[in-house]
Amino acid sequence: MKCSRCEREAVIFIRYNGEHLCAEHFMEFLERRVKHELRRQVDLRPGDRIVVGASGGKDSTTTVYLLKKILSMRRDIEIIAVTIDEGISGYRDRAIEVLRNYLKKIDVEHRIFRIKDSFGKTIDEISSLDKSLIPCTYCGVFRRSLLNRAARELGAKYVATGLNLDDTAQSIIMNFARGDLDRLARLGPHSIVKEDLIPRIQPLRMIPEKEVLLYAILRGIEFYHGTCPYADLALRNQYRKAIDEWEARSPGTRHSIVSVYDQLKPLLIENYKNFKLNRCEICGDPTPSKICKACELKIRLDKIQNI
Amino acid sequence: MKCSRCEREAVIFIRYNGEHLCAEHFMEFLERRVKHELRRQVDLRPGDRIVVGASGGKDSTTTVYLLKKILSMRRDIEIIAVTIDEGISGYRDRAIEVLRNYLKKIDVEHRIFRIKDSFGKTIDEISSLDKSLIPCTYCGVFRRSLLNRAARELGAKYVATGLNLDDTAQSIIMNFARGDLDRLARLGPHSIVKEDLIPRIQPLRMIPEKEVLLYAILRGIEFYHGTCPYADLALRNQYRKAIDEWEARSPGTRHSIVSVYDQLKPLLIENYKNFKLNRCEICGDPTPSKICKACELKIRLDKIQNI
Repeated sequence: MKCSRCEREAVIFIRYNGEHLCAEHFMEFLERRVKHELRRQVDLRPGDRIVVGASGGKDSTTTVYLLKKILSMRRDIEIIAVTIDEGISGYRDRAIEVLRNYLKKIDVEHRIFRIKDSFGKTIDEISSLDKSLIPCTYCGVFRRSLLNRAARELGAKYVATGLNLDDTAQSIIMNFARGDLDRLARLGPHSIVKEDLIPRIQPLRMIPEKEVLLYAILRGIEFYHGTCPYADLALRNQYRKAIDEWEARSPGTRHSIVSVYDQLKPLLIENYKNFKLNRCEICGDPTPSKICKACELKIRLDKIQNI
Repeated sequence: MKCSRCEREAVIFIRYNGEHLCAEHFMEFLERRVKHELRRQVDLRPGDRIVVGASGGKDSTTTVYLLKKILSMRRDIEIIAVTIDEGISGYRDRAIEVLRNYLKKIDVEHRIFRIKDSFGKTIDEISSLDKSLIPCTYCGVFRRSLLNRAARELGAKYVATGLNLDDTAQSIIMNFARGDLDRLARLGPHSIVKEDLIPRIQPLRMIPEKEVLLYAILRGIEFYHGTCPYADLALRNQYRKAIDEWEARSPGTRHSIVSVYDQLKPLLIENYKNFKLNRCEICGDPTPSKICKACELKIRLDKIQNI
């Protein structure tokens, strides 16, 4: 099949807009959308520092690569890759190895923050301690909390994550189905800065997962291919499965979900603008409750250990 | 297993609230919620006439039964069951037979309106004429349009439908995933009356499908058990399947979806309050476009027939 824009052979069919694209035109197509999305989300000023949450996987490594590429003319913007090491052996350690080498090649500073250092235990240890909560619950909360602390410590203005379109649509539907209107309102990208909560930006949020993968391969981006050993447990799987099926029958479903959400978001924010975050009574981090989720889980762990 | 409220044997376990209930307490539990829901949705005045869209199936027949029971002391309220006969042979004709007999027994007036009379063709005929649209598309649009016209003709103040909790959660997620913010805002129950659009009420919208079925059986409500021969084609199936899976893993998911929607709805309505409905240039019915969906499909059919 020929590329819809030139005479070269197509490498991908973009089902939701009907175009066949060759490698060159596909990369251009993807980069243009990421640039547009980045500009839509954020107005970067001289001296701004961006921390990228970098796991070593395809999405976040591509995010580092693209931010570096798109901002190559902006010497006044600094990019630091931050890895949260959850302590999942045979998985995160290998990913870090791959990432470290690649970041050296493309000359991006790399910092590692360990969940064990901040919360006392690795996710492996937690998973054998607490049998009634899936480790993903701890991992999600601790990772988010630590990434925010790391960004604050490093003086970052923004935290970029590798969330792609599939992830975004899943998060929206998942929070809807779980009745979490509050979290639905607080999903990134963030336009409003709440004290001590570094705003998150998501340059890939309109790029389907499959396209991120193809782009990473075509650009020779080196990333870790492994899957988290706990991945089968994640609640998110059932939402991924459903949305994949809807998308297969009706191409464009993921885009529609994000588009409805983006239209609802101003209404949600308007409704929540008087919503005040408290300070966690234990760690001082911002939280909608009295004690933040991370401290709540830490207390739970301590209790289990003392039984 | 004993009933959580008395010494009798339980007939159902209400998973989302943890109670085992005997037949008596289950029926009381269901009726209380329907009464509450009805009162929340509508403030009935003397002389009000309610048209119930009655297909002969468990949901709508139970709706007729419950409205009659709940409003038994309100001699000033009139209930008329209206069946839209789509013209699906071996299915709707049988359902009508069952319904007619039952409505006679419980003394409720019954009226039938035929899609063929209003739109020129039965759904069976349409399904063999138009092979590129599923018959459910025609059926949904024609049924909704005709039910509204019937209610108007009969001078009804409200149209009640048998939508249960499962249907409601499916409609919400389906319209979200299809990017239909406009229809999301216009899902019933309707609190605002738009001229010529009879407001819909949905007494069963918080009752899970399984509970409606059990209630109908326990109360001896006679309903038609058949399934529409086109049911396998409906887009809704994939949303039903997904939500059923989520509910199985996380009981309460359907309730959460409806609850998030109900919290969003005032924001949506506020946003859409200046939204003016037009008059269809062909039939004069209210429509957000120039030509209403029913006339649009009728034109499509005429074209196909003239090829």
